[in-house]
Amino acid sequence: MKKLSEDEIQNKLKDLEGWTYAKKAIHTSFQFENFKEAFTVMTRIAFEAEAQQHHPNWGNVYNQLEISLSTHDADGVTEKDFKMASAIEQIVDPSN
Amino acid sequence: MKKLSEDEIQNKLKDLEGWTYAKKAIHTSFQFENFKEAFTVMTRIAFEAEAQQHHPNWGNVYNQLEISLSTHDADGVTEKDFKMASAIEQIVDPSN
Repeated sequence: MKKLSEDEIQNKLKDLEGWTYAKKAIHTSFQFENFKEAFTVMTRIAFEAEAQQHHPNWGNVYNQLEISLSTHDADGVTEKDFKMASAIEQIVDPSN
Repeated sequence: MKKLSEDEIQNKLKDLEGWTYAKKAIHTSFQFENFKEAFTVMTRIAFEAEAQQHHPNWGNVYNQLEISLSTHDADGVTEKDFKMASAIEQIVDPSN
C-alpha cells in the first residue's frame, strides 16, 4: 500500500468533514450524548476495523471519542486510512 | 465521594498489580493477543463502567489497551476508581 503525499492527503481530506492531517496520521473526534452512545459507535467501528483488518488508534472518555488513522507498514497515510475514515463517517452519520 | 490522599492511594495500589498513580489518576495497560481480544475485554469493561456509572479514560491501538481512572467531581482518585480497577482486573484475569 503506497504512502500518500501530503498534497494527496490534503486533497482527499476535502471530502471528509472534521478530519485533519498531522504527525503522519489523519484525526477526528466526535461527541455523543453519553457513554452508551459512544461505545455503541465504537463497537460498530470495531467490527468494521476487523473486517478491513485496519485498526484505529483511538481514545474515549465518557461521551468523547478521538480517532487517529495511519498505516503502520507505510509509515504514513494510505488509501486504507481513507477507506476506514469513510466507513467511520457512515457509521456515525448514515445520512451522509 | 471523598478524594483519597496520596498515602491512601499508594497503600491501595499494593493490592493491584500493574497499576500506578500519576497526575490525579490511576493507570494501567494491557496487551492482548489481537484486536478482537482487546475489544472483547473493552466491551466487558464498558458494561461494568455503565453499571457503576463510572467511566474510564482509555485508549486502544490494535492489541494494546491503556486505562486511566479518576473521579472528575473529586478532582482526584476515590474509592470509585479502586472499585472500577478491581472490576477491570477481574474481567482481564478472572483467576485472580
